[in-house]
Amino acid sequence: MPDVGLLTPGADLGPGAATSGTDDIAVLRAMLRVEAAWLRAQAVHRLLPDDRVELMVAVLSGMAADDATALELATTVARQAADGGNPVIPLLAAIRSELVAVGLPDTGLHAGLTSQDVLDTALVLMLRAVTDAARADLETALDGVAELADRYRTTPALGRTLTQPAVPTTLGARFAGWLQDLRMAHGALLMDTNLPAAFGGAAGTLAGVVALFGPMAEPGRAMGLVNTWAHAQLGVPLAPGPWHVARGPMVRWAHAAAQTCAALGTIAADVLICARPEIGELAEPAATGRGGSSAMAHKHNPVLSVLLRRSALLTPALAAQVLTAAGQSVDQRADGAWHAEWPALQQLARHLAGSTHVAAELLTGLVVDPAAAARNLAIQLGVDPARADVGIAPLIVDQVLLETGYQDRVIGRPLPSRSLPGSTA
Amino acid sequence: MPDVGLLTPGADLGPGAATSGTDDIAVLRAMLRVEAAWLRAQAVHRLLPDDRVELMVAVLSGMAADDATALELATTVARQAADGGNPVIPLLAAIRSELVAVGLPDTGLHAGLTSQDVLDTALVLMLRAVTDAARADLETALDGVAELADRYRTTPALGRTLTQPAVPTTLGARFAGWLQDLRMAHGALLMDTNLPAAFGGAAGTLAGVVALFGPMAEPGRAMGLVNTWAHAQLGVPLAPGPWHVARGPMVRWAHAAAQTCAALGTIAADVLICARPEIGELAEPAATGRGGSSAMAHKHNPVLSVLLRRSALLTPALAAQVLTAAGQSVDQRADGAWHAEWPALQQLARHLAGSTHVAAELLTGLVVDPAAAARNLAIQLGVDPARADVGIAPLIVDQVLLETGYQDRVIGRPLPSRSLPGSTA
Amino acid sequence: MPDVGLLTPGADLGPGAATSGTDDIAVLRAMLRVEAAWLRAQAVHRLLPDDRVELMVAVLSGMAADDATALELATTVARQAADGGNPVIPLLAAIRSELVAVGLPDTGLHAGLTSQDVLDTALVLMLRAVTDAARADLETALDGVAELADRYRTTPALGRTLTQPAVPTTLGARFAGWLQDLRMAHGALLMDTNLPAAFGGAAGTLAGVVALFGPMAEPGRAMGLVNTWAHAQLGVPLAPGPWHVARGPMVRWAHAAAQTCAALGTIAADVLICARPEIGELAEPAATGRGGSSAMAHKHNPVLSVLLRRSALLTPALAAQVLTAAGQSVDQRADGAWHAEWPALQQLARHLAGSTHVAAELLTGLVVDPAAAARNLAIQLGVDPARADVGIAPLIVDQVLLETGYQDRVIGRPLPSRSLPGSTA
Amino acid sequence: MPDVGLLTPGADLGPGAATSGTDDIAVLRAMLRVEAAWLRAQAVHRLLPDDRVELMVAVLSGMAADDATALELATTVARQAADGGNPVIPLLAAIRSELVAVGLPDTGLHAGLTSQDVLDTALVLMLRAVTDAARADLETALDGVAELADRYRTTPALGRTLTQPAVPTTLGARFAGWLQDLRMAHGALLMDTNLPAAFGGAAGTLAGVVALFGPMAEPGRAMGLVNTWAHAQLGVPLAPGPWHVARGPMVRWAHAAAQTCAALGTIAADVLICARPEIGELAEPAATGRGGSSAMAHKHNPVLSVLLRRSALLTPALAAQVLTAAGQSVDQRADGAWHAEWPALQQLARHLAGSTHVAAELLTGLVVDPAAAARNLAIQLGVDPARADVGIAPLIVDQVLLETGYQDRVIGRPLPSRSLPGSTA
Repeated sequence: MPDVGLLTPGADLGPGAATSGTDDIAVLRAMLRVEAAWLRAQAVHRLLPDDRVELMVAVLSGMAADDATALELATTVARQAADGGNPVIPLLAAIRSELVAVGLPDTGLHAGLTSQDVLDTALVLMLRAVTDAARADLETALDGVAELADRYRTTPALGRTLTQPAVPTTLGARFAGWLQDLRMAHGALLMDTNLPAAFGGAAGTLAGVVALFGPMAEPGRAMGLVNTWAHAQLGVPLAPGPWHVARGPMVRWAHAAAQTCAALGTIAADVLICARPEIGELAEPAATGRGGSSAMAHKHNPVLSVLLRRSALLTPALAAQVLTAAGQSVDQRADGAWHAEWPALQQLARHLAGSTHVAAELLTGLVVDPAAAARNLAIQLGVDPARADVGIAPLIVDQVLLETGYQDRVIGRPLPSRSLPGSTA
Repeated sequence: MPDVGLLTPGADLGPGAATSGTDDIAVLRAMLRVEAAWLRAQAVHRLLPDDRVELMVAVLSGMAADDATALELATTVARQAADGGNPVIPLLAAIRSELVAVGLPDTGLHAGLTSQDVLDTALVLMLRAVTDAARADLETALDGVAELADRYRTTPALGRTLTQPAVPTTLGARFAGWLQDLRMAHGALLMDTNLPAAFGGAAGTLAGVVALFGPMAEPGRAMGLVNTWAHAQLGVPLAPGPWHVARGPMVRWAHAAAQTCAALGTIAADVLICARPEIGELAEPAATGRGGSSAMAHKHNPVLSVLLRRSALLTPALAAQVLTAAGQSVDQRADGAWHAEWPALQQLARHLAGSTHVAAELLTGLVVDPAAAARNLAIQLGVDPARADVGIAPLIVDQVLLETGYQDRVIGRPLPSRSLPGSTA
Repeated sequence: MPDVGLLTPGADLGPGAATSGTDDIAVLRAMLRVEAAWLRAQAVHRLLPDDRVELMVAVLSGMAADDATALELATTVARQAADGGNPVIPLLAAIRSELVAVGLPDTGLHAGLTSQDVLDTALVLMLRAVTDAARADLETALDGVAELADRYRTTPALGRTLTQPAVPTTLGARFAGWLQDLRMAHGALLMDTNLPAAFGGAAGTLAGVVALFGPMAEPGRAMGLVNTWAHAQLGVPLAPGPWHVARGPMVRWAHAAAQTCAALGTIAADVLICARPEIGELAEPAATGRGGSSAMAHKHNPVLSVLLRRSALLTPALAAQVLTAAGQSVDQRADGAWHAEWPALQQLARHLAGSTHVAAELLTGLVVDPAAAARNLAIQLGVDPARADVGIAPLIVDQVLLETGYQDRVIGRPLPSRSLPGSTA
Repeated sequence: MPDVGLLTPGADLGPGAATSGTDDIAVLRAMLRVEAAWLRAQAVHRLLPDDRVELMVAVLSGMAADDATALELATTVARQAADGGNPVIPLLAAIRSELVAVGLPDTGLHAGLTSQDVLDTALVLMLRAVTDAARADLETALDGVAELADRYRTTPALGRTLTQPAVPTTLGARFAGWLQDLRMAHGALLMDTNLPAAFGGAAGTLAGVVALFGPMAEPGRAMGLVNTWAHAQLGVPLAPGPWHVARGPMVRWAHAAAQTCAALGTIAADVLICARPEIGELAEPAATGRGGSSAMAHKHNPVLSVLLRRSALLTPALAAQVLTAAGQSVDQRADGAWHAEWPALQQLARHLAGSTHVAAELLTGLVVDPAAAARNLAIQLGVDPARADVGIAPLIVDQVLLETGYQDRVIGRPLPSRSLPGSTA
């Protein structure tokens, strides 16, 4: 029986997301897509007839076309996956059985590939789609934070350090700190997530692919087939060589995902403190039905931040799983380290998608109470907010806006001087 | 769309297991069972009429009776769970709707409870069932290891340290090391997994439960109702007080589960080394269809050990998630730390169940090749196996068998003297 | 050049502690003690002459007698340790050189042992001493918490869930929650830390020890020598067999240490929230010079809680290191997994010792402001504190006091009824 | 008493390294350097007289000039650091005391800074120096691996998957896999380690720095002073704004360090398998005194790989500590999350430095036995090595060499065709 996310509320892509999600069905469909692309690449290279390939691809597509069929197939494959240690083996058996059923040969199916080529590439497709959606949500969130920083750049507030009142700052400076960290995470999501397709065949030599071209063929043609498959059919890049045990790409992706969840975690921590009514400077955007309690009708819980904090607490360990596995890879394909990556990547994808989705809502609708901020400043430091010494907090806000790419917001304002005497910038 | 374990092959309880599994449906059913038990406890205490409670319980049971219904309900609840941050709130809405549909009032439903009472207790029910099954499988595995240690106690073999040939030992001594560690894990599964029901209501005072008995009632009766619910209805113990933010029970359970997976991980590491054909001293039990490859028909992969190693690589981080969350609990109920526990516990349960199940098969069917052991000893150390100095390896085997509870196996053999001069044992 | 704890303030045993600490000098001295005990055990068994052993032991003791000498030796040994991968090998070379310098033979030194026997046992001695000190500090902390729970059992306070005002509770109920979790951690420190000496020699067969007794000796005498060494000389128990790759004991110890730090982490989280002046219900005990800031003279930072929270944030990963290493042990002695344990254990010991020491001070001197608690309750829930419905919070406090061993505090009070109808307790 | 690396053999920079190390003395000196640079920057900006600043700087430099003095100061500061929770506060007291002793005022010392500015920037200086050294060592290692891949590009070998013989490959293809992953780690060490100085003062507004310029000064001058300090005096960049609670820079650095250790871990795993004498394809470079055993004179342990594997096993958890802490940052400066970073960063720096240093030695001296590789291929697959079908392994080697920057090695060889029909590269 399946999991449906009962224990990870708010994770995964939101209901309106255009892309597929992170669940087992998405992975199953991606595996089928990878095998179909391999058939089509063979057709492009004249190894298989076009028309037969299209018939075969139609069979593959049909195997998980509707959700009920996909669920049934995934369930069967999952149950059988323990025998070989991965789901590709029983999936191939299921495909062969379907092909036979409609009278098609299985020639060319998975020819020259190994399980890891298929599953890794399927995971890559899933992770890339999730990352794209997450990046879009993160950009919405970033716009919201930039707007907050801009709007409240001079609004006096109490600075707190080690939980205690410190000196005055501005609400905008707080938001600029969020912006800076979130922008760095966004950079990671841009730079470190260009996951390549996996290839190599049984032991990374493409021997089985070479064989497809026959004994007399120029060996380099095998690489050409791989190129067609990855670039033209799947739209993903290739690493220089096989990465069955060179797990840098997955490590980088996991880091970027975890960094994003951590950056959102510190925002959530701030909201959770400042939304306590004793402080009352921030509140989550209200939404019908959200924040309720099973025991207390009056409660309005800051659920969005709770979910972000949840993800920030558990994603570091998921990234550590990927790193640990990477460091234990061995031989031409590993004896457990590879298998340990899968659930970690799937869970990370879910929290990345969920956190960015939640953040977009939180940070475009955050409710700010400048009066509460002023009141806390006055009470805790005995300072008249109108005369509070906020140092160059507004200039710092502008500097952050500028350097994180929000140039338009700072036009016409005097910028903090990075070029005064002594600067080498 | 659901997950079905596609990316965690061989985890969770095996297909023949008597208990329910670890999936979301199991958790959903456990939540319904917890709410039903609360209704029945109220009937016992004359707070609700018996017959109406039975009608209500029938409605609750029916909501997840068959798998398709359960899946649909779980999917709906999971989707709605993001609003309140936990699945109990939408589940209660669904229950109320069902009760209304058959003309029953919802009086008494969830009365005086909080979401955390229900979800924690449901997770406890799930984890306890998994632990029982895992312990049984572990006992089968232990019997297998004890048998191996006994049978091969004097069989000469090469001792290896830091990967290099060291001095002679016996195969039995190696197996006795496995036995010792596995027995310690078994002790943890016995001692640290007696998870209690969660109670306390909104903020741990049982105020809502007290109110059920009316303004004049003796306040202690609230605790009596909780006792009935936990002990009589659910068969689980109670902690001294609420543990909404005192997460020791979950921490202990997670440790025991992770320790078990680690102990099996080191066994798997040994099998994976010794099943390399260049060494060839051990082999996994053969089974039709197992160990195949999608690329190479001749392969016989040691899949059971691969799966054990997989779980040993990823469970430490899951235990760390539970520990991290425990240390960040705060207030009367926490703002994310609680939520971070759920997927970690579910994943740990899955790997505990899967690892012990796999281990039972591996360790009752492990194929040992004494001739290969002798040959490696002779080649690597230039030692005649028949004359190898194995120290007191056989005595150590007997000592381990004896002290781990396998007394019957050592009857009639001279035991290693723990009582020679100088011993204070 | 050495580390002196610059980056782990407040970790390790406090300055007044009677036992040695967790630093490299402590480990060095423990290694010398282990080797000395092995010489003495041989004297007991008539394998070495008493008087010569005493001369040898005097040499060993002198090598790290004063701190400057110990530091120099440790530095040399540490530098050379990379060659063999562990510090025992260069330490033995240094010992031999010292023995030669005073005209003593090295006969019997390390005879029949392996590096791991010595280093593991030395770590065990260090960890046991730390655990004893930590348990004593934890008992002081527990007494403090029990006193708090007792004193404030009926004092009304605001219950907070998911950061928001929920329903009334009592300050005592909050403290009882701390007590319950801390007592569970204390139980772990009692049950799971009885670390045994490590033995076995090169590959766990004691062959080298058997050889000490000559070719005609009864083989079991080797175990007798080990017994004398462990029990009589070092005062530590023995596992059934060698545990070079059966790392359950270290795993258990690490779990108990991490659980303790987590339980203290949640207390710290509560203090850090409630010591915010906007809430103001708790304050750390004042001490001259503590809580200052380098930038703001008015600051009084809750440093004790900050240090506890620091340790709670980083100890889960240390426990995971020990678990990960345990699950990757292999052969008769492991190729890196063993080595990965050492710094994790040392760091964990430091945070266990530091956290319990800090907690003893925090929890025996915690400043409670009942008026602030009443005020927050009144403001946030609009409740008259004198009439607040705290359910059976006081009864729950008593129940926790009773079941955690503080019977004397609840004498004469009516206890919550665990024996009402329906209870099976 | 100090730690000297007794339990982390082979970590930290090697003995011949030109830069300072990662120990507490290095951090202490870096803190003094940060404070001295702040004085000098004030002199540049005419806030302090040049000559007095030079006298003050001389005092600061003298406080840790020789190792014995530095150790004593570090020990004192470490002991006192618990009071304020960080070492900057007692260090400043010690500096003031030294200045007074020589009749200098402390005007300008730490003026406008906060502890975190100083400690973070000191850690940044330490981490940057370590990263530079590590990158240089890694480049040596990379050259070694490229040489291996090139030399053995066509040498037939047994491909192993899931521990079992799979199909033929070449030794060069194996080394090319190492090269690819290591090069990716090198990229991370180039891109993600450009750590900025920390600034902001008490709550990130630079109010204290603004005040140095007097009430009439242009506020932006504060930023100019910060620029001088960071760029001109310390040679490090600045983030857009304060990053006291925006921990992306530390997270990125930690990831790059951990990724490097993981990439070396998988190389070590391969060496450890292939250096088993039953396989015998690889051996570590011999060095006098290395690889010895305390129990067995004949042993030659693969110590370099053991140390790499050790670091690969424990660094993922260290990276997780940094990530966890980052996600729990809060307010303007955090209540424990900051403090939790320090030991994690120090330990990571040590393992990064040690692993790259060890790797440079291992990978420039690795001993390869092509005959053993051929023999294993022949025995396990029944293949004549001279006729083994290695697919396009040599072409893949060339492709990896080319795309990782070793163009010179592939000149004159036909490259794998990435531009055959269907490629979109």
